[in-house]
Amino acid sequence: MITILGAGSIGVSFAAVFSDIGAKVCLADPDAERRGTAPHSLARQAEAIKDAGLWRGGAGSVEVVDDPGKALQGSDLVIECGPENLEIKRAIFADLLARTGSETVLATASSAITISGILPDPSQQERCLVAHPVNPPSILRVIELVPAPGTDQEATAKAARLFQSAGFETVHLGHEIEGFVLNRLQSAVLREAYRLVDEGVTDVAGIEAIMRMGLGPRWALSGPFETVELNTPGGIKAHAARMGPAYKRIGEARGETVDWNEDLVANVDAQRRKVLPLGALDRAGDMAFARCRSARCSARSADAGLTMQ
Amino acid sequence: MITILGAGSIGVSFAAVFSDIGAKVCLADPDAERRGTAPHSLARQAEAIKDAGLWRGGAGSVEVVDDPGKALQGSDLVIECGPENLEIKRAIFADLLARTGSETVLATASSAITISGILPDPSQQERCLVAHPVNPPSILRVIELVPAPGTDQEATAKAARLFQSAGFETVHLGHEIEGFVLNRLQSAVLREAYRLVDEGVTDVAGIEAIMRMGLGPRWALSGPFETVELNTPGGIKAHAARMGPAYKRIGEARGETVDWNEDLVANVDAQRRKVLPLGALDRAGDMAFARCRSARCSARSADAGLTMQ
Repeated sequence: MITILGAGSIGVSFAAVFSDIGAKVCLADPDAERRGTAPHSLARQAEAIKDAGLWRGGAGSVEVVDDPGKALQGSDLVIECGPENLEIKRAIFADLLARTGSETVLATASSAITISGILPDPSQQERCLVAHPVNPPSILRVIELVPAPGTDQEATAKAARLFQSAGFETVHLGHEIEGFVLNRLQSAVLREAYRLVDEGVTDVAGIEAIMRMGLGPRWALSGPFETVELNTPGGIKAHAARMGPAYKRIGEARGETVDWNEDLVANVDAQRRKVLPLGALDRAGDMAFARCRSARCSARSADAGLTMQ
Repeated sequence: MITILGAGSIGVSFAAVFSDIGAKVCLADPDAERRGTAPHSLARQAEAIKDAGLWRGGAGSVEVVDDPGKALQGSDLVIECGPENLEIKRAIFADLLARTGSETVLATASSAITISGILPDPSQQERCLVAHPVNPPSILRVIELVPAPGTDQEATAKAARLFQSAGFETVHLGHEIEGFVLNRLQSAVLREAYRLVDEGVTDVAGIEAIMRMGLGPRWALSGPFETVELNTPGGIKAHAARMGPAYKRIGEARGETVDWNEDLVANVDAQRRKVLPLGALDRAGDMAFARCRSARCSARSADAGLTMQ
C-alpha cells in the first residue's frame, strides 16, 4: 500500500505510476474539488504513461479519500505532496509520525524544504526523507532521495526499492543542500540567463532557442559530463584542460571561485571511464541526435498548449 | 556558392546542410587524409539529416579541394571551421580578406575566439563575424551570430539570411562576450556539477541521471524560462517571487550577486507574454513529454556507442 497526500499534479502523477505497477494506492486530499477532478486527472496521466511506452498493465487501484485513515497503518510508503509551506508540512509530519508505525517510510515531495526543516530533532527523522520528483513524474522517472542526518539508511533503501520498482532511477544525495541537485542546476542556468538578458547579450527568445534547439537535446540524450566528452577527443581530462581556463574566467566574472583541481578532474574522469571507455568516444551520437530531434519536434507541434517558435 | 574551410566534423556537417538545400559548396582542407574521408563523412551526415526529417532534396553539390582558389571570389559566405587556435585563425582571416571581395561575408565557427581577437582593427571587421554552431549542426539547427564592434549590420543580416535559408534559427548576440551564450550556459551547469561532486552531494552518475532523465527532456521541449513557467502558475513573475529568494541564496553561496530586480523580471515576463499568454500556462506539456521521452529512449538504445544506464 502506498499513501499519497495531496491530489495536485504531482500527487496524481505518483498515484498513476504506482497503481500502474500493481500497487494499492490511497490518494488523500482534504479539498473536495480536487477529489472530484482526480479521476479525470488520473486517466490523463495513464494516457501519458502509455504514450511514453512506460505502461505496465495498470493492475493496481487508486482510492480517493479525504483522510487516509486506516490506510496509513498498512502503508509501506507515504508520499506527502502538499503545499510548499513549512508550517503545513510540519503539521502533516507530526500527524504522520503519530499515526504510522515503524515499518512506514515517510517521504515529502518538496522541491526545497528539507526533513531537517520539517523535523529539526534527528530522533524524529529516522523514517523520513525527501523524495523530490521532476514534473511530471509519470514520465520523467528520476527522483532525488535526500536523507536528513537522522534518517536510517534502511528507510532510504526501502524508499529507493519502492521507487525503483515503479521505474524511477533514484539519485541518492549525500546530505541535505538547498535546491538539492536539480534546482541547483536549474538555478545556475537561470541566473546566467537573466544576466545575459540584463546585459543585452541576447533576449529571452535567444536563450530559449539555444537551450531548446541546442543544449537541451544534447542534455536529454547525455548528461553534462557525457556531452562534453562526446565533443572533446580525450574526454573529461582533455575538456578540463582545453575549456577549463575559459570556464574559470567566465565563472570568476560572475564572482565564483572555480577550482577544478587535478584530483577533482581525475575523480570525475574515473567515474566516467567506468561508464564509457575512452575508445568509445567517437562522436557516435550524431545518428541518435537525428532521431531524437525529429521526435522532439513532432511532440512539440502536437502540443496545442505551446506555439512553434 | 558557400566556401567551407576545414573538413572536420563541423565543416563536413555544414557542407552537408548547404548542399542539401541546393547550394554549391566548396569544402577545402589542406590535409589529404581529411579530404579522403570527406565523402564518407558527407554521406553519414546526409543520412543523419534524413533520419531527422530535415532532408530537402540534396540538389546542391560539394567539391572537396585542398585550396578554395577561385571559389572564394564567387562565394556569398565563407565559414572557417579550422582549429581553435588564435594564430591559425589570424593567418586564415588575413588570407581571406586579401582573396575575397566586399560581397563575401567571412564567418568563423569558433566556439570561443572572437572576431576582435582575430582582427583587432575594427576597420578590418566589416564583413566578419562569428557563426557558432551546436555540434552536430546538421541536426541541431541553431546558430549564434556574434558581430564585432566593426561588423556591418548588412554582413550579419546576409549571414543570417543564408543560415536561415538552410533551416537554422539564428540567435543574434548584442556584443562579443566570452563563451557566447551556449558555452556560458553550459559552463554554469558544469561549474555547479563539478562542485556538487566535489562536495559529496552526488556522484557523476547522479548528475548525469538528473540532467538526462529530468532537466534535459524539459529543456529540449522548452527553454529555461518556459520550463519554469510551465511549472509555476502565474508564469515568470510568480516564479521570481516564489523561487527567486532561494536561487539568490544558492547563487550567493557560490559567490554570485543575484539581482533579479523588478524591471528585469518585468522585461523577461513581457517577452514571454508575447510568445505565450498567461491563460495558456495550464501544464499542457505532459502529453508532449510522453512522446518525447519515448522517442529519446529508443534513440539512445539504438546508438551503439552509448550504453543505456
